[in-house]
Amino acid sequence: MENKQKHSGLTGWRKKLHDIIFEAETPLGKTFDVTLLVLIVLSVFAVLIDSVPGIHQKYGDLLFMAEWIFTILFSIEYLLRIYTTFRPKKYIFSFYGIIDLLAILPTYLSLVLIGSQYLLVIRMLRLLRVFRVLKLARYVGASHVLAIAMKNSRHKIVVFLEVVVTMVVIMGSLMYLIEGPENGFKSIPLSIYWAIVTLTTVGYGDIAPQTFLGQLLASVIMITGYAIIAVPTGIISVEMAKAKDTPVSTQICPDCHYDYHDQDAVYCKKCGSKL
Amino acid sequence: MENKQKHSGLTGWRKKLHDIIFEAETPLGKTFDVTLLVLIVLSVFAVLIDSVPGIHQKYGDLLFMAEWIFTILFSIEYLLRIYTTFRPKKYIFSFYGIIDLLAILPTYLSLVLIGSQYLLVIRMLRLLRVFRVLKLARYVGASHVLAIAMKNSRHKIVVFLEVVVTMVVIMGSLMYLIEGPENGFKSIPLSIYWAIVTLTTVGYGDIAPQTFLGQLLASVIMITGYAIIAVPTGIISVEMAKAKDTPVSTQICPDCHYDYHDQDAVYCKKCGSKL
Amino acid sequence: MENKQKHSGLTGWRKKLHDIIFEAETPLGKTFDVTLLVLIVLSVFAVLIDSVPGIHQKYGDLLFMAEWIFTILFSIEYLLRIYTTFRPKKYIFSFYGIIDLLAILPTYLSLVLIGSQYLLVIRMLRLLRVFRVLKLARYVGASHVLAIAMKNSRHKIVVFLEVVVTMVVIMGSLMYLIEGPENGFKSIPLSIYWAIVTLTTVGYGDIAPQTFLGQLLASVIMITGYAIIAVPTGIISVEMAKAKDTPVSTQICPDCHYDYHDQDAVYCKKCGSKL
Amino acid sequence: MENKQKHSGLTGWRKKLHDIIFEAETPLGKTFDVTLLVLIVLSVFAVLIDSVPGIHQKYGDLLFMAEWIFTILFSIEYLLRIYTTFRPKKYIFSFYGIIDLLAILPTYLSLVLIGSQYLLVIRMLRLLRVFRVLKLARYVGASHVLAIAMKNSRHKIVVFLEVVVTMVVIMGSLMYLIEGPENGFKSIPLSIYWAIVTLTTVGYGDIAPQTFLGQLLASVIMITGYAIIAVPTGIISVEMAKAKDTPVSTQICPDCHYDYHDQDAVYCKKCGSKL
Repeated sequence: MENKQKHSGLTGWRKKLHDIIFEAETPLGKTFDVTLLVLIVLSVFAVLIDSVPGIHQKYGDLLFMAEWIFTILFSIEYLLRIYTTFRPKKYIFSFYGIIDLLAILPTYLSLVLIGSQYLLVIRMLRLLRVFRVLKLARYVGASHVLAIAMKNSRHKIVVFLEVVVTMVVIMGSLMYLIEGPENGFKSIPLSIYWAIVTLTTVGYGDIAPQTFLGQLLASVIMITGYAIIAVPTGIISVEMAKAKDTPVSTQICPDCHYDYHDQDAVYCKKCGSKL
Repeated sequence: MENKQKHSGLTGWRKKLHDIIFEAETPLGKTFDVTLLVLIVLSVFAVLIDSVPGIHQKYGDLLFMAEWIFTILFSIEYLLRIYTTFRPKKYIFSFYGIIDLLAILPTYLSLVLIGSQYLLVIRMLRLLRVFRVLKLARYVGASHVLAIAMKNSRHKIVVFLEVVVTMVVIMGSLMYLIEGPENGFKSIPLSIYWAIVTLTTVGYGDIAPQTFLGQLLASVIMITGYAIIAVPTGIISVEMAKAKDTPVSTQICPDCHYDYHDQDAVYCKKCGSKL
Repeated sequence: MENKQKHSGLTGWRKKLHDIIFEAETPLGKTFDVTLLVLIVLSVFAVLIDSVPGIHQKYGDLLFMAEWIFTILFSIEYLLRIYTTFRPKKYIFSFYGIIDLLAILPTYLSLVLIGSQYLLVIRMLRLLRVFRVLKLARYVGASHVLAIAMKNSRHKIVVFLEVVVTMVVIMGSLMYLIEGPENGFKSIPLSIYWAIVTLTTVGYGDIAPQTFLGQLLASVIMITGYAIIAVPTGIISVEMAKAKDTPVSTQICPDCHYDYHDQDAVYCKKCGSKL
Repeated sequence: MENKQKHSGLTGWRKKLHDIIFEAETPLGKTFDVTLLVLIVLSVFAVLIDSVPGIHQKYGDLLFMAEWIFTILFSIEYLLRIYTTFRPKKYIFSFYGIIDLLAILPTYLSLVLIGSQYLLVIRMLRLLRVFRVLKLARYVGASHVLAIAMKNSRHKIVVFLEVVVTMVVIMGSLMYLIEGPENGFKSIPLSIYWAIVTLTTVGYGDIAPQTFLGQLLASVIMITGYAIIAVPTGIISVEMAKAKDTPVSTQICPDCHYDYHDQDAVYCKKCGSKL
């Protein structure tokens, strides 16, 4: 009852705008969401190619204009979202609310700080909504399982990272002592960087041990390191096996923006609002 | 009954040809299949060595001729397959029907488009039939389990890839800002390429961060990235554990080309035709 | 009773000091522990930046002094720990007792052996206590699970390492024979180093096969090696799935320094002392 | 009874020799086995360092002599093994029988074929017996579990390798077409080698895509490849979880050389001989 009143608290066209922007049930809402996704992809693409010297020289002005048009469109959308939501503050400080803001800021910032317009790629994060917007419940469910597994393994991952950081600092320092600046290990921080590159099996090869002792220690790091680096896979596999694999609803609570509801849920399980 | 009529609808020698080409029960059918596998391996091998400059100079003409002989043989085989199958359309648009066509097209295409003959290596895909042709039920079963596990993890893999793509775009852009064109990060697309090379732990080393801040961010990408990249292994391990591990029949339905029948199946479970 | 007597065997202020240094229940004990963690981080950080040529030139004297101040502080702390513990010998030869000693030795050693002060980074190991000190039972539990999983997989890891070492020695020798010194494989030990770099998928690229046969063997090492290197992940995943995931107490037995007690434990399960 | 007769068929000192060489229960047998392990390690070590130019120049003659002494000792041991075993043929054609022969052949071969003495490192394989010889039942059990897991996953690994080989051939050919010889992709076989280096995440960097299209395809190979390459880990994890983890006996059947007996086994489960 209380929720109903709150909902009907919005006047006619404001309510309509809300349904178009936040819901994707009506044809107009669906069109709005898909258009938005296309615009986001285009605007990120524009930033990417603008950084290519050849393209920048030729189409720089055009892309600069496009950037401003996209930004103004997204700014209007952001303001409308605030205006038509039931609880503006909840939206502004929600995960997607912050991203929506960050997705327009860099253009304005680029007036003061040259180069900051490249940060516009943060708009990519808005695409994380794609499965929910397109009503693909299977994918929303899958991302839920992944999120749960990551969340449940966070304690073990933190402990693991602590051990890894301790290892690379000590190994890096040892390599600095063994190889020294004359073999490319110019300082301990750089040697630690090398140890990380080696332990994660990335192995750029810009720095590589030259002395026998250095290669011996590097071999030890690689082999024993391989056994240790297998740990995160083990952690996540186990958590993944535990996480329930059920499709969830693609609805978002209009009130508190909580977004993992069961498919048969009628009321939000966090705040009791009608979905 | 209906199926029987359809089968007997083929006249004598056409029926015989069908049994030789599509079945591997009779000695002649077995010989045909094994010969085919050998020819495919030889023809792919010819394409591979023809691309080596030294060999091309010496044996180029010979290999060119061989290529055409193989293609004509495979073309005849392809036409015979269409002619002797019960439902030509089903075969033409089936997975292996398309591959069989793609395996002969590039040679004809090379008359117009120079270089396209190298695409003949697509013939390799025909070898995927090897276990079924050689009646190795254990391997057909194993590939079935792998296929099931991959299929069941597709939603999670897509979500995972979306997150990875978002990450590399943002990380690549940040590295472009930090390192800049003077350190090899010439454009954002190239920096994204670097981020992919780093996150997947390939690490060519043709582009590598030079500044302290760049190396710091690269370290963060590598270490946290390692935890994230462990995810697909977790996903597939879990699905693999779920997939049933039973040997399946090596028979293909003559009618609808469905190919995973239980070992004691007498009728196709998809269309009811007698196997 | 016996334990009580032992505890009360410490005189007033010695008992107080013990509670500050070894316990973290009282406000003073907590402050002491947190200060210690901050000092350790700072002292390691000082060693790291002191190795950067530019910084060493400018702030070398300052950092040298800081190093001695840190070392003297940690030396006092080490002596106090010995003085205020119930069984000094147990502490001295415990895991953390040895680390606490190793964390001060390099500075004194650097008076005789130039360069050894870089080994001070071993102080990092003292940070492994961070979760226990900050009373984060979840993380202590997580590290317990990881430790158990690693411990239980040690037999399999050792067998695995034996096979890997055998493989890289044989593969390295073969590559030395195939590629030879003229292609960078200058000796068998160096070729073995290359084999380790390849098998662990690090791949620096400072040494890479140049001949066809060498690249063929390298491909075999990489592909089959990949299947084999998947083994440690399998081992650890399985052990991780078995290990119980319960938060443990952050208490350490004052008497025998055993440190994995259940959360409701009142007496040490190893020596019976009151916790 | 029959076995007893066979055993007692060996005359006194031949029986004694057998017990020393094949068993490790008596002090003499134990001494023999440990001496053998030490000699193997020393002889492999001699081969390794002999390949280092500096050492070869100085100690080449000494190491050459050592090589012959080791080989003669191992040859005598090999002949004694044949002479004192119950069924010489079974031993000669058993896994370790073949390795024992291969471990002495290269030295004799080096009289004809220069360089073949480096193959002596194959002696490393003899060390695989180390856990059995040292009666470390836990490790013998662990290697049994690993062997079982590898054996049970062989069908899936073969299918997986077939898919990987097909992929790298097609991807390599595509890259050859896109990048061409001018960017280092000199032939299709070399491009396939590059594809293997990339797919296994080794990434030497000696060959790397230069064109935009090439880097795009390389990115696709890396990202999707990463999902595919997670498969062997999944396969082995699952099989590892299934394999029973019981310590097995370190005994070898004197008759048929079968070597995985339960700890309480009195008779060989393969041939019925008394252990």
